[in-house]
Amino acid sequence: MAKQLTSRAENYSQWYNDLVIKADLAESSAVRGCMVIKPYGYAIWERMHDELDRMFKETGHVNAYFPLFIPKSFLSKEADHVEGFAKECAVVTHYRLKQNPDGPGVVVDPAAKLEEELIVRPTSETIIWSTYKNWIQSYRDLPILCNQWANVVRWEMRTRLFLRTAEFLWQEGHTAHATEAEAMAEAQKMLHVYADFAENFLGIPVIQGVKSANERFAGAVETFCIEALMQDGKALQAGTSHFLGQNFAKAFDVTFVNKENKQELVWATSWGVSTRLMGALIMSHSDDNGLVLPPNLAPYQVVIVPIYKNDEQFKAVEARILPLVDQLKAAGIRVKYDNDDTKKPGWKFAEYELKGVPVRLAMGAMDLENGTIEVARRDTMTKESLPLDGIVGHVKSLMDVIQKNIYQKALDYRKSVTRTVDTYEEFKVEIEKGGFLLCHWDGTPETEEKIKEETKATIRCIPFDGDKTPGKCMVTGKPSKQRVVFARAY
Amino acid sequence: MAKQLTSRAENYSQWYNDLVIKADLAESSAVRGCMVIKPYGYAIWERMHDELDRMFKETGHVNAYFPLFIPKSFLSKEADHVEGFAKECAVVTHYRLKQNPDGPGVVVDPAAKLEEELIVRPTSETIIWSTYKNWIQSYRDLPILCNQWANVVRWEMRTRLFLRTAEFLWQEGHTAHATEAEAMAEAQKMLHVYADFAENFLGIPVIQGVKSANERFAGAVETFCIEALMQDGKALQAGTSHFLGQNFAKAFDVTFVNKENKQELVWATSWGVSTRLMGALIMSHSDDNGLVLPPNLAPYQVVIVPIYKNDEQFKAVEARILPLVDQLKAAGIRVKYDNDDTKKPGWKFAEYELKGVPVRLAMGAMDLENGTIEVARRDTMTKESLPLDGIVGHVKSLMDVIQKNIYQKALDYRKSVTRTVDTYEEFKVEIEKGGFLLCHWDGTPETEEKIKEETKATIRCIPFDGDKTPGKCMVTGKPSKQRVVFARAY
Repeated sequence: MAKQLTSRAENYSQWYNDLVIKADLAESSAVRGCMVIKPYGYAIWERMHDELDRMFKETGHVNAYFPLFIPKSFLSKEADHVEGFAKECAVVTHYRLKQNPDGPGVVVDPAAKLEEELIVRPTSETIIWSTYKNWIQSYRDLPILCNQWANVVRWEMRTRLFLRTAEFLWQEGHTAHATEAEAMAEAQKMLHVYADFAENFLGIPVIQGVKSANERFAGAVETFCIEALMQDGKALQAGTSHFLGQNFAKAFDVTFVNKENKQELVWATSWGVSTRLMGALIMSHSDDNGLVLPPNLAPYQVVIVPIYKNDEQFKAVEARILPLVDQLKAAGIRVKYDNDDTKKPGWKFAEYELKGVPVRLAMGAMDLENGTIEVARRDTMTKESLPLDGIVGHVKSLMDVIQKNIYQKALDYRKSVTRTVDTYEEFKVEIEKGGFLLCHWDGTPETEEKIKEETKATIRCIPFDGDKTPGKCMVTGKPSKQRVVFARAY
Repeated sequence: MAKQLTSRAENYSQWYNDLVIKADLAESSAVRGCMVIKPYGYAIWERMHDELDRMFKETGHVNAYFPLFIPKSFLSKEADHVEGFAKECAVVTHYRLKQNPDGPGVVVDPAAKLEEELIVRPTSETIIWSTYKNWIQSYRDLPILCNQWANVVRWEMRTRLFLRTAEFLWQEGHTAHATEAEAMAEAQKMLHVYADFAENFLGIPVIQGVKSANERFAGAVETFCIEALMQDGKALQAGTSHFLGQNFAKAFDVTFVNKENKQELVWATSWGVSTRLMGALIMSHSDDNGLVLPPNLAPYQVVIVPIYKNDEQFKAVEARILPLVDQLKAAGIRVKYDNDDTKKPGWKFAEYELKGVPVRLAMGAMDLENGTIEVARRDTMTKESLPLDGIVGHVKSLMDVIQKNIYQKALDYRKSVTRTVDTYEEFKVEIEKGGFLLCHWDGTPETEEKIKEETKATIRCIPFDGDKTPGKCMVTGKPSKQRVVFARAY
């Protein structure tokens, strides 16, 4: 078959690339590092968007839209932020092209140079806090709970579809608060929203925790994260939420009059997830046959394929399928009926396996006689013939079963490769096998840096849950408050 | 009151600016020509987005996402296109900043100059057709019916919030077809979708027609448009749909093998509406008290304000309001209950008038006694006391009544300022009064250009409907096939 994927065992990285291309999720574009998100990939992203948007609104947030461009000087206002983001970014220097005087085509018009260069936003803290300055005078103007759905650009040198692209789509929440406690609670609340979304919608188990100083967002006081584990044993940061303290309020002079009539700096958070989640999704569940989608997320949850040898059989089968399509839709199931007669059933089966449709129903002449229908599950690759009677209820309950199974499978895998390691010697051996390693660490950036240099492993997070027994750092032997999560990461 | 607007009669342009700012729709940003869309403005845009997206999907379209950047050389590939779009655009020339060696802040790193400059998309035909080249081999790959929701940048010199901004949000449909007839039908179908949306959702009557050559999209064979009339008598182009012929297929060498096994160039359309619709919405319906929103579009269709003198009254009133809120929601009405006790009812009334909420309900102690509620309509600024009994049904039916009334009012206004004019002398007098003028024109760009230079009026469109009686051009006396629509325009 033309669409066969490289197997994961053979070459995991190639398998990922094959899958993204062959399942029509995305492809590289003519612009270095920028991707085209194809309709099927975009439909999955839209499902993520819609569910997250619902969750944000349910927790009191509203959407807004801020400019694509950031004046260069804004980036320098927060010292750590500029260090983290100014380096690799797209810089707009001119605002006009003109006919090439020396040949064909167009050239940049040197007369149209901007007085101050504009940066295509790599993240929007600076432009948003320069705006919030005008929105906030008194404690009555707080909190501000805004989210933005947008494209951002970070000029990455090595790019991979969804995982690391120069342009990507994301949402970025930016909130402003009167007190430190409220901002801290917000940052943690949104982390929990992300964890809930990842686990219950994407079926991806995540560890929630706080980043070490080395891995903190540029400009944050504290960065919280959800960390997922891919099937190759590498970690992937699936979302972050930052407590920004008063850093951006200071940088942009954003103050408010509190209830006691005193001027104070405003407290901030920001939080985001991106099209990188598409990569996390693919690498958490998919197999050598293609994508595996949890039913909550799947653009189509069920596909129905008619099996027939002639037009008469086709008509008879279709007469039974059409009412079923309506019944499934009425039961709230997203269903596709594929009656394209230029494609063979075998081709369709492979295609929908590749695309990860959770349930495939097939009905032929024999089924008509027997009053049955073939039900195939994508997650287990099993199929069975079931009575047509009651099939809607069965399919509906299958949605839950599959959603849970996909999550459980990922969780079981994670558990199987999460180990406690006590010595650095053992660590060096174990890290080669992948997975999460729970180890004691002395809390210093120096030790973390040494481990990273020697093993390519980083501290994914200091987990909220889990064993809080103190111990001794596996490298330096100095005291450690609790085990932290190490892994090699995407 | 602090939020009072300049009246339309006094200064229409200032009234518009005041309204956009004071109703919290949008504001200027620190970046020249770029706006911040504030949460209330964005909520209205989201309603437009959701409804259009539903309509696009219902007509068989899917969403995708293409890169923000366009290589400079792509723009030159279609001769008319580059003429129209290359002039005023944001040009990315570098991909890195570095610490300023001579002082504070960051500077562009001259070592990080791009080999080929990138243009921030002003529209995406070129990048999309360079992509479609790889998607299309055979007639079986057609049609492609993609839409994209995106931000675009056109470096406008004079900007106005929503109406003309350097960056704006829009959707752009880009379709590929095997035949000319199919592409032409698609371009017209999408124009009808826009007209349906404008009239039935936004309550804005529009004239559908085709643009004269002077007003055609750069790169199109034919441009169709919907034209609306603002309250000051100026026209506003509210959406366009282009039949692109084979121009972009030629430019990017996009061919397919047809059913007869012959290589052919692909046929194309593109169509778009933008945040400019926010401007059309505001200037079609709003009044000196603020925004007037049609119920289909309003983020909140109903606001409920409790009236009370003390806590006891408040509790009694609220006890009646809360179940009503639930009943209205259950009836599918978007309702806001405003029990903020830091604001007086009078302030709230003015605020929701400013924000254009279609229906305001108010309930006080007297109403409790009488079993009544006060119902105020934003469109007519009328109010009446009605029995609480049956109020949900009444409010629900009011939604339809108001939606229709807003449309009818705009239609009546348009009719009142649409005139037939037969001589150029009369035209010069009448155009000063605003409105649509239906006139005979000889069909030449020269005559159109002369009229534009002398009167600032342009041909808004050659309407599909309306009088098709031939006549003589009001300027040259040459034959004219039908009257066309002239106006001064935004």
